[in-house]
Amino acid sequence: MQVKIKDVAKRAGVSVTTVSRVLNGEKYVKDDLKAKVNKAIDELGYAPSQIARSLVRKKTNLIGVIVPDLTSSFYSTILSSIEQVASANDYHLLVCNISEDIDKELKYLNAFQEMRVEGIIIMHEKINEPIRNLIHKIHIPVIFSSVKPMDQKFISVIVDDYAAAFDATKYLIELGHESIGFIGGDMRDITSGQNRYSGYRNAMAASGKKLVYEHIRFGDYKVQSGYDQMKDLLGTETPPTAVFVVSDDMAVGAMNCIRDHNLRVPEDISIMGFDGSLLTELVRPKLTSMEQPIHLMGRVTMEVLLKQIEGDKMPDEDVILAHRLMIRESCRNRNDERN
Amino acid sequence: MQVKIKDVAKRAGVSVTTVSRVLNGEKYVKDDLKAKVNKAIDELGYAPSQIARSLVRKKTNLIGVIVPDLTSSFYSTILSSIEQVASANDYHLLVCNISEDIDKELKYLNAFQEMRVEGIIIMHEKINEPIRNLIHKIHIPVIFSSVKPMDQKFISVIVDDYAAAFDATKYLIELGHESIGFIGGDMRDITSGQNRYSGYRNAMAASGKKLVYEHIRFGDYKVQSGYDQMKDLLGTETPPTAVFVVSDDMAVGAMNCIRDHNLRVPEDISIMGFDGSLLTELVRPKLTSMEQPIHLMGRVTMEVLLKQIEGDKMPDEDVILAHRLMIRESCRNRNDERN
Repeated sequence: MQVKIKDVAKRAGVSVTTVSRVLNGEKYVKDDLKAKVNKAIDELGYAPSQIARSLVRKKTNLIGVIVPDLTSSFYSTILSSIEQVASANDYHLLVCNISEDIDKELKYLNAFQEMRVEGIIIMHEKINEPIRNLIHKIHIPVIFSSVKPMDQKFISVIVDDYAAAFDATKYLIELGHESIGFIGGDMRDITSGQNRYSGYRNAMAASGKKLVYEHIRFGDYKVQSGYDQMKDLLGTETPPTAVFVVSDDMAVGAMNCIRDHNLRVPEDISIMGFDGSLLTELVRPKLTSMEQPIHLMGRVTMEVLLKQIEGDKMPDEDVILAHRLMIRESCRNRNDERN
Repeated sequence: MQVKIKDVAKRAGVSVTTVSRVLNGEKYVKDDLKAKVNKAIDELGYAPSQIARSLVRKKTNLIGVIVPDLTSSFYSTILSSIEQVASANDYHLLVCNISEDIDKELKYLNAFQEMRVEGIIIMHEKINEPIRNLIHKIHIPVIFSSVKPMDQKFISVIVDDYAAAFDATKYLIELGHESIGFIGGDMRDITSGQNRYSGYRNAMAASGKKLVYEHIRFGDYKVQSGYDQMKDLLGTETPPTAVFVVSDDMAVGAMNCIRDHNLRVPEDISIMGFDGSLLTELVRPKLTSMEQPIHLMGRVTMEVLLKQIEGDKMPDEDVILAHRLMIRESCRNRNDERN
């Protein structure tokens, strides 16, 4: 049973009005009454209702967060940084894990609206028509983190995925690789699908490298699909000597596939990942990866959203964070061997 | 700006009372008025306030969840299963990541109470006095998942950590290892600290194996501490031929340490993990581990909590789920060699 204000009054031996006056911090309440009320509150574990106060103050301090996959280290790390900033500002996160279930997302967005969340963070870009219509109508600040959907109305906190993929591919070219394969993401995704693929293609073209149709594959960002796509690459007539893989999870799958085929990373095939997740340091050889500043991304997402909620001037453009090449052990330098 | 009921009335050209009657699904509202109101609701993106309804129905459909470390695959996987059951039952999760910050936990528990969450899930056992006092007083169902704190009042959903650790150690003994080291957890933790340590010790004693003081170390369950503790074990005069490590994260750290010292798993040293997290399949060699049924644990936690919330008869004892030895590639059989 929830403790009510009348229970406190009864235990303290005072009127409900007195309890209410103490709770509201009014002056002119006698010290002994105040002490009695506070003692009763403490003994009964009474807490004033946030719900009732929400109605009055029109503030719920709730943020709705839509995560595509909680079990992925990339998303759970962003979430932990969002939570840190939210908590420091007395906001609470309602977390929804959609696992690519679009119906679930729509249901959650409706619930977020009914619960009067003050802001919504979305971490994927598979925005269909009903979802787009809803988020355009609901009059609640929405921000995208790590992705930029086709719709241009909302702010995203992202890296420049095109430039990051271009730089990752360029690094493999500079290491002396002629034949560089690619394991991409979902091409319906602008940032993680299309932009990273364009970066790869244009870096290859800029260096006069030939694109080999059989060396270009697409997965779903998860470990198993990296494994499966790599298996197909190993089955081609002449496998590439290096592969740029657009998520660290897929890159780890690709490395495991190479090892399970009795080949070595990086001696036989070099692997370049993307994200800079915790996995890069866990695997052996350690994974060279194009790093997104994951913690910063979570923090900045929440900070920008707080500004929107507070009605401050917010950025009218996306916030682009710097990417960074983290050289570890999974890419081999072929230049030395040729001299 | 939040759309209000009077905005809907204005757009539809009807009275607020009419809108209210349509929203409440009353009979005897003319079809053309109903159509007008529904059109206005749709166009404006109006949603009735969950907050106001909460006050009336005394139901918030909120569950507070306290996670020790969102970036750990073990906890984020439990959380994803909790979320699945919650969502299917129209409950929403308020997620708090405490990162061992006890002050933050207390603050969150108070917030949960004020927000009238209907249940609380806690996934760690570092319960100090103020937290214990609070959860005993708040009249909200509390359940522990994957841990059992010293306090006996609350239900836990766990495996039998003692038996699981006993069986893990016994397996290493059966493989012919004489010298079996141990990397344990925080000994202030009953389940993951003390019980797993007791299981190891008693399995060793039951087989007449000697406990070697230098081969027993304790970490904090995270990758880096597994690495550091393994480094100390490698520095002993005669390192063990097998090590039982009480979390998969630490076990992966231990494996990496062994490899970085130019030794091989399992040829030189066998490693047995605990948890059955996603990591076990990601690393090479794949990690043999004593598996907790992580997804089931999350689902059962939420199901039992829902029963408590609905006032159904709930279990008056802990729910103990079965552990399972998952044999992969990180433990070597020494029996063959001796014959």
